[in-house]
Amino acid sequence: MNGICIVGYGYWGPKLVRNFLAASGGRPVAVCDESPVRLARARADFPNVKTFASFEEALGDPTFDAVALATPVSTHFPLAKRALESGRHVLVEKPITHSLATAHELIELAARQRRVLMVDHTFVYHPAVRKIKALVEAGDLGQLRYIDSTRINLGLFQHDVNVLWDLAVHDLSIVNFLTAERPLAVSAVATAHTPGAPENIGFITLRYASGLVVHLNCSWVSPVKIRHILIGGDKRMILYNDLDANEPIKVYDSGYQARTDEDRNRLLFDYRVGDVYSPKIPGGEALAALAADFVRAATEGTEPVSSGRFGADVVAILEAAQRSVGLRGQEVSLA
Amino acid sequence: MNGICIVGYGYWGPKLVRNFLAASGGRPVAVCDESPVRLARARADFPNVKTFASFEEALGDPTFDAVALATPVSTHFPLAKRALESGRHVLVEKPITHSLATAHELIELAARQRRVLMVDHTFVYHPAVRKIKALVEAGDLGQLRYIDSTRINLGLFQHDVNVLWDLAVHDLSIVNFLTAERPLAVSAVATAHTPGAPENIGFITLRYASGLVVHLNCSWVSPVKIRHILIGGDKRMILYNDLDANEPIKVYDSGYQARTDEDRNRLLFDYRVGDVYSPKIPGGEALAALAADFVRAATEGTEPVSSGRFGADVVAILEAAQRSVGLRGQEVSLA
Amino acid sequence: MNGICIVGYGYWGPKLVRNFLAASGGRPVAVCDESPVRLARARADFPNVKTFASFEEALGDPTFDAVALATPVSTHFPLAKRALESGRHVLVEKPITHSLATAHELIELAARQRRVLMVDHTFVYHPAVRKIKALVEAGDLGQLRYIDSTRINLGLFQHDVNVLWDLAVHDLSIVNFLTAERPLAVSAVATAHTPGAPENIGFITLRYASGLVVHLNCSWVSPVKIRHILIGGDKRMILYNDLDANEPIKVYDSGYQARTDEDRNRLLFDYRVGDVYSPKIPGGEALAALAADFVRAATEGTEPVSSGRFGADVVAILEAAQRSVGLRGQEVSLA
Amino acid sequence: MNGICIVGYGYWGPKLVRNFLAASGGRPVAVCDESPVRLARARADFPNVKTFASFEEALGDPTFDAVALATPVSTHFPLAKRALESGRHVLVEKPITHSLATAHELIELAARQRRVLMVDHTFVYHPAVRKIKALVEAGDLGQLRYIDSTRINLGLFQHDVNVLWDLAVHDLSIVNFLTAERPLAVSAVATAHTPGAPENIGFITLRYASGLVVHLNCSWVSPVKIRHILIGGDKRMILYNDLDANEPIKVYDSGYQARTDEDRNRLLFDYRVGDVYSPKIPGGEALAALAADFVRAATEGTEPVSSGRFGADVVAILEAAQRSVGLRGQEVSLA
Repeated sequence: MNGICIVGYGYWGPKLVRNFLAASGGRPVAVCDESPVRLARARADFPNVKTFASFEEALGDPTFDAVALATPVSTHFPLAKRALESGRHVLVEKPITHSLATAHELIELAARQRRVLMVDHTFVYHPAVRKIKALVEAGDLGQLRYIDSTRINLGLFQHDVNVLWDLAVHDLSIVNFLTAERPLAVSAVATAHTPGAPENIGFITLRYASGLVVHLNCSWVSPVKIRHILIGGDKRMILYNDLDANEPIKVYDSGYQARTDEDRNRLLFDYRVGDVYSPKIPGGEALAALAADFVRAATEGTEPVSSGRFGADVVAILEAAQRSVGLRGQEVSLA
Repeated sequence: MNGICIVGYGYWGPKLVRNFLAASGGRPVAVCDESPVRLARARADFPNVKTFASFEEALGDPTFDAVALATPVSTHFPLAKRALESGRHVLVEKPITHSLATAHELIELAARQRRVLMVDHTFVYHPAVRKIKALVEAGDLGQLRYIDSTRINLGLFQHDVNVLWDLAVHDLSIVNFLTAERPLAVSAVATAHTPGAPENIGFITLRYASGLVVHLNCSWVSPVKIRHILIGGDKRMILYNDLDANEPIKVYDSGYQARTDEDRNRLLFDYRVGDVYSPKIPGGEALAALAADFVRAATEGTEPVSSGRFGADVVAILEAAQRSVGLRGQEVSLA
Repeated sequence: MNGICIVGYGYWGPKLVRNFLAASGGRPVAVCDESPVRLARARADFPNVKTFASFEEALGDPTFDAVALATPVSTHFPLAKRALESGRHVLVEKPITHSLATAHELIELAARQRRVLMVDHTFVYHPAVRKIKALVEAGDLGQLRYIDSTRINLGLFQHDVNVLWDLAVHDLSIVNFLTAERPLAVSAVATAHTPGAPENIGFITLRYASGLVVHLNCSWVSPVKIRHILIGGDKRMILYNDLDANEPIKVYDSGYQARTDEDRNRLLFDYRVGDVYSPKIPGGEALAALAADFVRAATEGTEPVSSGRFGADVVAILEAAQRSVGLRGQEVSLA
Repeated sequence: MNGICIVGYGYWGPKLVRNFLAASGGRPVAVCDESPVRLARARADFPNVKTFASFEEALGDPTFDAVALATPVSTHFPLAKRALESGRHVLVEKPITHSLATAHELIELAARQRRVLMVDHTFVYHPAVRKIKALVEAGDLGQLRYIDSTRINLGLFQHDVNVLWDLAVHDLSIVNFLTAERPLAVSAVATAHTPGAPENIGFITLRYASGLVVHLNCSWVSPVKIRHILIGGDKRMILYNDLDANEPIKVYDSGYQARTDEDRNRLLFDYRVGDVYSPKIPGGEALAALAADFVRAATEGTEPVSSGRFGADVVAILEAAQRSVGLRGQEVSLA
């Protein structure tokens, strides 16, 4: 990788510029935006960053052989396709695209072009989420039984996606990161309180072959902001509270187990409620780790954690969930 | 009403005895339990309370023309039927029975016998729930948009009911109490992690003609205990936290409204985030108010809030939810 | 010990009766109160408990060779003295008396009479406080640097003691229990907002030879109830929140240490902020453990934890603190 | 005012640059720092800002007729004096100086020079603190009875000030802002756990003619961060929790009042515990409001809220508190 051009200088673009300036090892960073106002703001924020007034102009400069797309979801597919065709490595905002078919087309194109295709699922680079994955993989939780997430707040209505594609997308990336298992089927319900507006409240339930059940509760219309994920194993359980700066992860030495086969028949369970432990989470910004992963993939050929394939797995669930919403909660198979 | 006999002296029975001693205005109170150990305990706890070793023996004493059934759900129908046939007023633990058909049979029998049939949905007598209903009826919240309840803890597995019939039953009584509207349809998913055991995690979503959506999240296997109900209107929203002894109700002066028709088309919403207000909740035990309501109904012929009809409405939803669980989330009509 | 008579049947008396019925191993329990109304209540609550209408009448019954005084502080000295002189073992509500001189007189009298003299400092029997002491004694905290307690709420004004003698007395018993060291000197400030009423806000600071500093903040006029004790060592620190039923104790793997002698000169410190750990606290009521300790002392001659000597150490600090209040915060020596 | 030069580009300097760029209405902003490294960082952060490598060089440029000192406390007096003598308006970090005598010398010099002298007590510009003052002034709290602040965390040891001058200075500015009354006397205790290091734990109690009592608890060695201020009036009480982003202020409709004169004699009080109300706090950065106040004072001749006189009042209390620490808590008069 020689240089990277961040496309779209709205809410997320400036964060990408800042992090790639730090992660790129001195390689040049550029900004592309069709709005002169936003481009002027980029120049004021980062005087040493080159700017382009159009995507084609950016693609005309061979210095920048990588692009990061921080543009609306509906533009992800055409812009990423064009960039891959022009030989660029591509990092694209989450979700990768708004359909599984287009996601697969990009994955195949990237493979043919031998270029990196990566999705900005920032949460899988969060130190707290990484810590939870380490605990899961070390067997500390035992067999995963359920994951139950609540991600609600008084949020801005999005124009081109609903609350599932805006918020549940985060939880699905975390769930897919924590377990290698993929769901068999999804059931979802969502509601729009304003005619013609995207759904602002949604619930997704995933069923797995192992017996794991995942439930997601998303809302843009809650007066309180909650970011809770419960991860229950038969040995221990975790509460991940993203808003608790001091103790984001609590590990409960609690579980339930039938004591003997006979007990199981008589349904007597032993509840262990023990110590609670809140591991120290190392510092470090998730987006910095993500940028470093992209640079490494584009320079050394490694596979990024949040690959195109990883992003497509998330979109597969979202697409099926959306179908289930249309069927009023009827389960949709993911086979 | 001349006197009341509490049937079943396990966890709930002693609370009923204590509250009916206070509410009955000096009328005699008795206890009936087939376990000699439990009956001895009742005598030790309440030396002045008469005891019966069998249900038939209790029915043989005409002093006690009312019974309160604090027995397993599977016994509700036969015991309540027998008591009504013998001319007793009946208070029955929640849920009224485990099927809508048997609930209706009891309601009709009570009407023919001109006796009170009431269900112990304690929550609808809670001062906090009453306060919320007063705010809803005064129009403080505007039109109800959603109710979202989380009722999870590390609970005892029940033998004859699953988590929906054990926990969601509380939320359904609260929801039906807060709004006169009844749901059009229900979608539900539930999971049992132990083969042959009742489901220990469950989710219910209700759809209403007005656009209201209700979602319930119940679990016996959460390491943390949460009792949150969010009630969202287009003018204000409420968070009811049953575990916050100091501020159980918070009223958020928040809402979202399209500002004009044109805004609505462009999906621009105005978010109001204003003051938060925590009304003082009057003291008083819910069960005392419930006992008083039963005594009043049995002596003055008034209609109790938590009537047999009210209890049947709850069972109608539970039964449909259970059917939806069998259909893996497919919506089941309640028409 | 043959039997115990609880003297005073107000707020605390019934709790003592219940716990001594459980702890006394079948030995008889009696109640003494000069108020006929309270005595009638005692008979209703505990039909099998003997009652006495006056202290002298109780002392006339040789069955009860132990008394527990749950009476106002001003009565502690005369009643305890009379009981010891009559050959009784004595448990007295905290504080032991309202002066160090009278406390010492009781201690000497008990020694001469070879009877138990014990003070009801319930907190030193709390499982959470016992757990903290175990951690301190195991060296987990390193050297104790500070203890900082906040014990505030909207409380009832007491008639015969001020907020220091009512609330700080708890903290002083905990502090003296956690460390064998006794303070060199005390500085205190307290305020009464109503002329002639006891002080309702008070602050105490204790200075120790080891460098330990203890600070207590007590109030009857706080709108929020707080029961926080911070215990800081140079290796770890503890937050004890008596109102957190789930995690009353949090152990912070935090400390501060100068890294080298040179660093110390330049005042550079290394802050370790590590894991947080919340040990499971065993169940069990503190008052039950206290009652058992008293019965054991009176039957087997063991030394109770909360002995008369222990109670006098607390009064010594309170008396000096009161003197410092009169001197507007000037330090009073405890040598 | 023509332009402002920020002196010292460490932790606070960059914030001042950013806020004065926004508040100065296009007037030029400069940075002065003797460290070439820090000056280079300033140029990178703000390419359009002029830089000076020494204070004298800065004073040599007549464009900048105002200076903001973000330098160690020990430098405040000489730098502010030099700047005022050269005809500059001066904003100085809190505390104004480390002695009342030097503070008064600066105030008199500023008056003679007809220049603004202002202290950066940021908290008195916080929207939450302003809201509390509005409630106090509107009489909502009734007569102020107590203010009780806890400001503790695991903080960096300062080199040239102790915890009172570093943390209590904030509380004293808030207290002096909320009430026009000034304390009669101060009692303080503070402890240094490392020989030769500044005190890291401190407690201050202030006594007022009106009966108001103020207590401050400051620590750099607490494992938990707490920023609580309780403000108690005889009609209502406030809890200001600076760390609660959603509800920083809670107003408790609680109070205590003797019901009649006779009640007062018998010490019977009526406790009102009513609704809790959390007013919406307007947004806006405190430092922006402070910068605007300085610019207004320097251009229009208005009196800033956080004037030199206001800063001297804070130092008067700190100086007396330090004296009381030396006297081990003995009260020091502020008359």
